[in-house]
This record gives sequence, structure tokens and C-alpha cells, in this order.
Amino acid sequence: MYKNKNIKRTELSELGEFGLIKRLTKDFKISNPSTLKGVGDDASVISHEGDEILVSTDLLVEGIHFDLTYTPLIHLGYKAAIVNFSDIAAMNGIPEQITVSIALSNRFPLEAVEELYEGINLACKKYKVDLVGGDTSSSVSGLFISVTVIGRANKDTITYRNGANVNDLIFVSGDLGAAYMGLLLLEREKQVFQADPEIQPELKGYEYILERQLKPEARTSVVKLLKEHQVIPTSMIDISDGLASEILHICDASEKGCCLYEEKIPVDATTVSMAEEFKIDPTTAALNGGEDYELLFTIKQQDFEKIKDLAEITPIGHITEADAGANLISRDGTFVQLIAQGWEAFKKNKE
Amino acid sequence: MYKNKNIKRTELSELGEFGLIKRLTKDFKISNPSTLKGVGDDASVISHEGDEILVSTDLLVEGIHFDLTYTPLIHLGYKAAIVNFSDIAAMNGIPEQITVSIALSNRFPLEAVEELYEGINLACKKYKVDLVGGDTSSSVSGLFISVTVIGRANKDTITYRNGANVNDLIFVSGDLGAAYMGLLLLEREKQVFQADPEIQPELKGYEYILERQLKPEARTSVVKLLKEHQVIPTSMIDISDGLASEILHICDASEKGCCLYEEKIPVDATTVSMAEEFKIDPTTAALNGGEDYELLFTIKQQDFEKIKDLAEITPIGHITEADAGANLISRDGTFVQLIAQGWEAFKKNKE
Repeated sequence: MYKNKNIKRTELSELGEFGLIKRLTKDFKISNPSTLKGVGDDASVISHEGDEILVSTDLLVEGIHFDLTYTPLIHLGYKAAIVNFSDIAAMNGIPEQITVSIALSNRFPLEAVEELYEGINLACKKYKVDLVGGDTSSSVSGLFISVTVIGRANKDTITYRNGANVNDLIFVSGDLGAAYMGLLLLEREKQVFQADPEIQPELKGYEYILERQLKPEARTSVVKLLKEHQVIPTSMIDISDGLASEILHICDASEKGCCLYEEKIPVDATTVSMAEEFKIDPTTAALNGGEDYELLFTIKQQDFEKIKDLAEITPIGHITEADAGANLISRDGTFVQLIAQGWEAFKKNKE
Repeated sequence: MYKNKNIKRTELSELGEFGLIKRLTKDFKISNPSTLKGVGDDASVISHEGDEILVSTDLLVEGIHFDLTYTPLIHLGYKAAIVNFSDIAAMNGIPEQITVSIALSNRFPLEAVEELYEGINLACKKYKVDLVGGDTSSSVSGLFISVTVIGRANKDTITYRNGANVNDLIFVSGDLGAAYMGLLLLEREKQVFQADPEIQPELKGYEYILERQLKPEARTSVVKLLKEHQVIPTSMIDISDGLASEILHICDASEKGCCLYEEKIPVDATTVSMAEEFKIDPTTAALNGGEDYELLFTIKQQDFEKIKDLAEITPIGHITEADAGANLISRDGTFVQLIAQGWEAFKKNKE
């Protein structure tokens, strides 16, 4: 679906590939001095002196990662950029450039693709990231978006997944589970709509969880905040697949265990009330829901004082020896072993 | 199609996404000191000091860019990497890292994907390029490959499309038109096979044009050769869409005209004989065929002496004032205006 159904429909074949690229990228402005050459040659040229370069890439596939019946293309473009920026933030870096490749069937007119790029451009402007290249192609069916992001980090503060040590404190930014509840709500309203197109979707009061699903943000602000307070995390990852899956990645890479406290996991009130409506434990949504794009990181105990008063982040547990395993202490004090039940890109296809 | 049809078929859903990535990347070795961290964290980490970084990306779509009925997956993987390396060479740079994202339907078993990655790995080994990241996903139908390459160039020798000056000499590496004739041959044999599956394809004697289509190379060797002979091209591009389209890109970007000599355009004997069989002018194949991945570049007249004896490159014309237009002088001395008739990714879909 795209925003304005009354506008002109221009077939992509009228423009040709070069015409399309020119049209789509004309509103993108360069904002980083390191971007020496953007779109328009065989490769973009990026200057970096002293710092390390971070590169990450993500692929979004129609019918697997998004459903166009309830995802406006402008939001899809925004999200496609954000999920990549989030990967750079997760290395304690700042995103600076992206390339965007799309393949789409000819059921999409130019206006639809422009709306998608409008969303990408909004994300680029907000995060001061430069679009420096890409490729566009037909597909036999469906829409595919492949984004690669290039970021920068100081070589002494890059944060990997494997640096967590015993007794390090585990922090998370923002709140968890909201994006997943937003998805469940959209899926429910889609079914209601399919059963009776006369019924208007009931989305009022749920703006927060819908925005978390449709228009997530990347926590580069947390990267800047940690720098400002002179804290270098010992390990970091972004929460794309759910808290349980992500903390297990840190534990695996660092060869450690962990102890999380259920009562400390930040969950928004809207998430809790929606979870109750769906008869889902809100903690389950936080642990396994995914797509929150918050940062999960560990810090040394002695750094706690520096950041304990920041509203943007919450301590939720600590790192243990590997043989203690990865556990959640529930509200009633029982130990629950953490298992990853997040998104499984290949299993979804078989449903 | 994949090479060995008798091997075990492992469903991708058995492995899950992380298992698949581990399996596919286990045979990739790191060969560049600038690759600090490859696959396995949120982003890869690349170190560059002083040089500029080049980034390019390409998307290959089943049914648009390749036909699996006659493209072995190992060759497809090789070519997907090569076409990106070629973009870096076209900037007078050397490729160092790639990311590979693929989306594929569950008609592909693990063994097919492994064969694709085997081809990518062959290209990586040959060109000493490191695989540093990627993403894998299901698709509802078809195979999509998105590759992003990161390269390095000295800031004083990076070559753009826009630096050609009047009287600069125009050179091309290798020979042209062969990849297109290879494609026509494969298309013909596919039709013969579809009409009668008992008939064996007639490919003997045409190994050269088939290899040019199925297993092209990137001319990083020419980049090194020019450096060795202390020649910095004034402009450069790689020939993905045919000589006519590419020289027009250089003329447009440089705001110049050009004069090419038909008799000087290098065309292999196999290309000529295949073209005759198809009743196509070999020059047309060279001008509009595409997918040769040779380098097209301009040099100052005074640099001619330094490289005139190199067998790998051929002078084919010179740059003129813009108002002279872009022309080909045919063998009989007539001026023919050059027009781009190369690949049109969006028109193909409508055929």
C-alpha cells in the first residue's frame, strides 16, 4: 500500500534504471565530510582517517519481514534504514553512509518507490547519514530491500559481543516488547478487516506500540550518551530478535553466563495492557518478541555510578561464570533458564 | 540448477539463520590486514589509514539477471562477486571486503546455497577479498543476491567518470562482445533443449564466449598494470552495459564528445564467428552487448608512450569537444552517432 492512492501512476519502465536512480536520489543531501563522492560513479568514495570503519547489511523481503497490507511504504523505507543504523550503534559507532538496493515487480509504480525512498530519506536526515549508492532492478514478484550501512567508531571504543566479564552489569535502553505487541495488533486488525472490510481498525490508544513496530528508532543517542559519561561498554548488541536471544549471543561470544531479573526488565504500560488483552505474559513479549532495536550492553561495576541516573537506560542483571548458565530470576524468585525463541527467518516461510 | 544432483538435500529450516550463516562462511579465510573483524558481530570492522574507501553494490535477481536453467550456481556466485570487484577496479581501486545478502525460496536446499557460496569464495580467494558480513532470508519465490564491496584507493589516483579532457586517448582492456554472444548461444541451446530434451547442447568450440558470459573476470590486473607504468587515467568506467553506453557515461560526466574507430575495437575471433552465425554485426555486440566487465578509460596523450606496448589494453579513439558529439568512425569512414542501447533492467521485465 502507499500513502496517496489518487496520485499519478508512472510505470518504472518509462524511466529506465538510470532515470529511476536519478529521480529517487535527487532529494538526498550529503551531510558527512567523510562522504567524498556519493551516487553517480562506479563506487562511492569515503574518507576515514584514524578511525575504524564499520559495515553492516540487512535484507528485507516482502511476505517474510513485512506485510504491505498494513505497512505504509514510507515507514518501510524508514525502518529499512533504521535497522541498519542500529547495527552500527550496537558496535558503539555512528552510522555515516548507506547504500540501498531494491528489486520490485511491476505492480509497483514510480510513486510507490518514491514513497519508500522518502522514508529512507527521513531516516537519513534524522540520523545525518548519507545515501551513497545502490542498485534497482525488477523482480518477478515481490519487493526486496537490501541496505548496507557504513559507520565509524574510534578504535579504542568499538564494542564487540565478546567482551563481557563476570560481575559486569547488564543494561538495556528504552523498553522492550512493544514492537511485538504492535505487530500482533496489526495482524489482528488485518484479519478483522479481511473478514469484514466495513469494520474500521481499532488502533486508538495504541499509538505507542504501533509506532514501535512501524517506525522504530536506532539508539545512536545512547552511544553518544555513554561517550559523554565516559563509559565504554564491555559488550553490546542491538535487540532485533528479542532480549533472550540477544543476551545469549553475548553470553556465547563472551563465554559467560548471566542472571537477569524479570522485575527489572522495562516494559511500557501500553505493552502490558495489550499483552493482557492477548493473554500473553508481557515478559514473554520482552524476551522473545524482537524488533525493539534497543541496545543491550554490559559495563564494569565501577562505571555504574557514572550512568545510574540516566532515564534512557536500565540495569537488568549481571554477568556470571559460564557454568552458572543463562537465567532469569522471575518475580516469585524462581530461576528460569533462558532459551532463544526469537524470529526464525527460515521457519516463518514454512508456516 | 546445481552441480551435483545426487548429494543430500538439507532443508534450510533445519539449520535456522545463524546456523546457515556459520555453515556458509566457515571456509572463508581473511586475507587483508585491514579486515579487523569479519562475520559474527553486528557489523564488520575495517581499518583504513590515509587511503580512501570505495563502496559499491549490485543486486542480481533470478529471471532478470540470470537464468538458473543454464547458469550453474557456482558460476553465479563467482559472477556476483566479480561484477562488484569490477566496480572498484573502475575507480582505479582494489577490492578488499564484501558483504553478501541472499533471499531464496525453499525450493533451494542447503547444498544449492553452499554451491553459490563456493563460487563467491573462489572469487574472494582469487582476488584476495574478505567476506565480512551478510544476511540470509527466505523469499516467497526466486533467488536474490545483493553484494556490497568495499575497496581502497590512494586519494591521488582515484579515477572518476568526469575527468576526461579533449584529446585524451580512449583505451579499453581485453576484448568486447564475447559475453553477449555467450548469452545468445546459451539462450539458443536452452530453446533447443526445451523443444527436445534428448538433444545435447552444442557448446564445443565456444568455450571462450561461454566463459566470458558465465565466469567473467574483474580487471584489477589492469589497475595494477597502470600503477606499475605510472599512468593515472583521467576517467574510467567498467563495461557492464556495452561500450556505447559506457563511453556515453564518460562523455556526459566529463561534458565532452568522443571519436571511436570501429576497426580498433578489440573483438575475439570466436565472438566474430558466433556473431556471423547469428547474423549480428560483431561491432554491434561490442557496442551494445554488455557484461564484458572490461575497463574503459582515458589517458593524457603524453602517457601514451608508457603503455603503448601493453597487450592487455587497446587504444580505440579519443575525446573531443562536447559539440562534436559522440561518434563512431566505421570501417568505411562514415560517422555514426553513438546511442546507448544496453541492458534495460526494467524493460526486460515487460517482455
